[in-house]
Amino acid sequence: MQQQEATHETYEARVERLRDIIEDGAPEAIREVCEELHPATVADLLHELSPDRILTVLNMLDEDQRVETFGHLPLETQRDLTAFLEPRELASLIVRMPHDERVDLLQRLTPEHTAGLLRMVAKTERDDMLRLATYPEGTAGAIMTSDYALLDQGLTAGQAIAQLRQAAPEKETIYTAYVVDKNRRLVGYVRLRDLILAEPGTPLGDLVEHDAPYVRVTDDQREAARILSKYDMLAVPVVNGGDALVGIITFDDAMDVSEREATEDMHRMGAAGLVETSLKDATVGLLVRKRVPWLMILVFMNIFSGAGIAFFEDTIEAVVALVFFLPLLIDSGGNAGSQASTLMVRSLATGDVRLRDWFGLLRKEVIVAVAMGILMGIAVSPIGIFRAGPEVAVVVALTMVCVVVAGSLIGMLLPFLLQRFRFDPATASAPLVTSLADIAGVLIYFSIATWYLGIHAAPAA
Amino acid sequence: MQQQEATHETYEARVERLRDIIEDGAPEAIREVCEELHPATVADLLHELSPDRILTVLNMLDEDQRVETFGHLPLETQRDLTAFLEPRELASLIVRMPHDERVDLLQRLTPEHTAGLLRMVAKTERDDMLRLATYPEGTAGAIMTSDYALLDQGLTAGQAIAQLRQAAPEKETIYTAYVVDKNRRLVGYVRLRDLILAEPGTPLGDLVEHDAPYVRVTDDQREAARILSKYDMLAVPVVNGGDALVGIITFDDAMDVSEREATEDMHRMGAAGLVETSLKDATVGLLVRKRVPWLMILVFMNIFSGAGIAFFEDTIEAVVALVFFLPLLIDSGGNAGSQASTLMVRSLATGDVRLRDWFGLLRKEVIVAVAMGILMGIAVSPIGIFRAGPEVAVVVALTMVCVVVAGSLIGMLLPFLLQRFRFDPATASAPLVTSLADIAGVLIYFSIATWYLGIHAAPAA
Repeated sequence: MQQQEATHETYEARVERLRDIIEDGAPEAIREVCEELHPATVADLLHELSPDRILTVLNMLDEDQRVETFGHLPLETQRDLTAFLEPRELASLIVRMPHDERVDLLQRLTPEHTAGLLRMVAKTERDDMLRLATYPEGTAGAIMTSDYALLDQGLTAGQAIAQLRQAAPEKETIYTAYVVDKNRRLVGYVRLRDLILAEPGTPLGDLVEHDAPYVRVTDDQREAARILSKYDMLAVPVVNGGDALVGIITFDDAMDVSEREATEDMHRMGAAGLVETSLKDATVGLLVRKRVPWLMILVFMNIFSGAGIAFFEDTIEAVVALVFFLPLLIDSGGNAGSQASTLMVRSLATGDVRLRDWFGLLRKEVIVAVAMGILMGIAVSPIGIFRAGPEVAVVVALTMVCVVVAGSLIGMLLPFLLQRFRFDPATASAPLVTSLADIAGVLIYFSIATWYLGIHAAPAA
Repeated sequence: MQQQEATHETYEARVERLRDIIEDGAPEAIREVCEELHPATVADLLHELSPDRILTVLNMLDEDQRVETFGHLPLETQRDLTAFLEPRELASLIVRMPHDERVDLLQRLTPEHTAGLLRMVAKTERDDMLRLATYPEGTAGAIMTSDYALLDQGLTAGQAIAQLRQAAPEKETIYTAYVVDKNRRLVGYVRLRDLILAEPGTPLGDLVEHDAPYVRVTDDQREAARILSKYDMLAVPVVNGGDALVGIITFDDAMDVSEREATEDMHRMGAAGLVETSLKDATVGLLVRKRVPWLMILVFMNIFSGAGIAFFEDTIEAVVALVFFLPLLIDSGGNAGSQASTLMVRSLATGDVRLRDWFGLLRKEVIVAVAMGILMGIAVSPIGIFRAGPEVAVVVALTMVCVVVAGSLIGMLLPFLLQRFRFDPATASAPLVTSLADIAGVLIYFSIATWYLGIHAAPAA
């Protein structure tokens, strides 16, 4: 009982207690502490210390723990640390890192630094790093790893287990192993679970799953994450243009992709630019640079709304009460549009909706929007009557139906248009849709008012 | 070569070809087709057919494939199918389903249906289902599964592998097995990888990882997904209030949680309500019911903006040109606010930012907002001068600085306030923040205008 209590104190409270030791404890104490903890936790504790302090701690750890802890540090911290390492030290660290992680780091070093480093490593390792580094960011190739386990089709289950056992220390996973033909083309995969369950003499061929879902190196990372999640796979194989197996993407990297892509989409949908670092680490300069461009673009779009209002200045001067309903009406269009774009952008991102579905969804959106517009029009009519009499109330209610429909259609169609022309649909942010809906709203409102109230608008000076 | 080509045609093109066979082929042909495909693909092909057609196909499959395919159908389809099954047939299906999936289904049946069904299954199974069904939606308990593998601390590595081999067919995963004490309290976990690597005689105690990160049954599902992702775990153990191991959450379910939570957050942030079904399947009625409430709330908030404008009617009548700048100014505040709330909501959701960080972030946001406000103010000044002369330009520039700061602070603080009072921070949607920023913007703009232009405002009639 006592012992268990002690064990359970650990993960929640111990980390805090250990922070002090790591920050200024004796080397021996630090090593003991780090060996007890998960490398991800050690990295968490380390990453805010100074680079030389981090290196001191890392150097106290044994090889495996050092490499794993280093790999869990943020990439910027990893990069900063490389400046303090001898090329030889760095090379010995890098060859032990998982193949996907080391390429991420390599791509953040200066070309001279990379060149110096590559001279230190064996040719096969070097070729592997250079090859993995060629895939553009965002593709499956850029996050795959080349340390997957291969098995020969001619083995028995028992032999296969023995081979995996030998290969295990260098492979990212041995829970799924792959079978390829002599041209390295993917034939299928074998689960360790099935190997363990089978009689040792079972031919591997009986256990191979053919028709493995796979992705291509050039496919979007999201597609890889989607396939892995859909088929509940531990790893998804990646093939090149010639159908040869060139890597795998494991579930942990796929989870990171989903998280990062969701963050990117949300930032885009909030017109906040792509803030890729932690918000706590982001500098004022970075945040301003990311956010101002969209604010500027939107302000200049709003000039059109302003121009629309100016165009109808006579109508406004004649019935100033109309201005009271302006925010309420144009915002309703913008809000309905934000809803529609949010639903579409997310459905396009998860693959729930495809480009070809646009027409069916448009039809549905029209019906939804008309229904919502009528409900909203009925809801605001009493306010119209109370504030400005029945005449204006009719204008307000009619406008409400039209702006909700216009806003919804803008919000629904914009993501499809963006996707169609190969932009990111998430660019159809709430603020962008709102600004477009505002322009439409101003024109609709004052046009209906001018027409219905029998006032003739004249262009502003 | 030829054979490989044939293999590679499969996953992309074959599914389409097989659709026809499934829809109206002979039983034998259907069974052959389905046995070649992943159950997730079969479920994809089936789910739009009529329930009796789905059942006909399911009944052709062998036991394992039937259970797996059924589990990959959408929950609504599963529920619809249960109506066509004899209680005994349903019971035999349900006892073979993974423990977490069957509880999800059970919770969608009517109480009578569930009661009838539970009478058909053995007591241990029944108790397990009832226990798993008690955890509220959104908690770790609600998505955990109870079919995890346990190992006794006294075994050797070889014995442990033999035991896992026996247990494998019933367990969700054998790649991670758990060690508990006599009170079922979690002692640690063992990786199959380490078991395979070790000499068969190695005591299990040497391979157990103590300090396993874990979650509690009552923890948020997001927390479970976050921990699993942070520590790259295949499964995260779940303990109850007495620290006893009661279940595990596997990576595939954690991925589903991350996806679903990201979707929920985005829908909230777009003020679109929570549309939980596929957008293609959602009915018009559902979409209207989800979307109208927020539109109504926002419209009534906009009345305050309208009232603000009405309050300054005299100012507007005196200088109608001010109205031209109204959308541009109040939208800039709303946009800056949307950016701030987007960044905060996402950072709170991923755990990058915690409640206690609010003050540091507030300080940074003030600096960012003032910088952005000044840049925006400078950018709009020429338009102010051109449209309405230097006097109005000063008002517009001054207002711009103030509304960008006000909007940013509203957008930044609202998610923290919501989280603090245990609401979902994602409720701080772009439209909500925009509406609040609009009210602030109207008051700021016309106050500055009234003061600077030396006009005295009088309340509207």
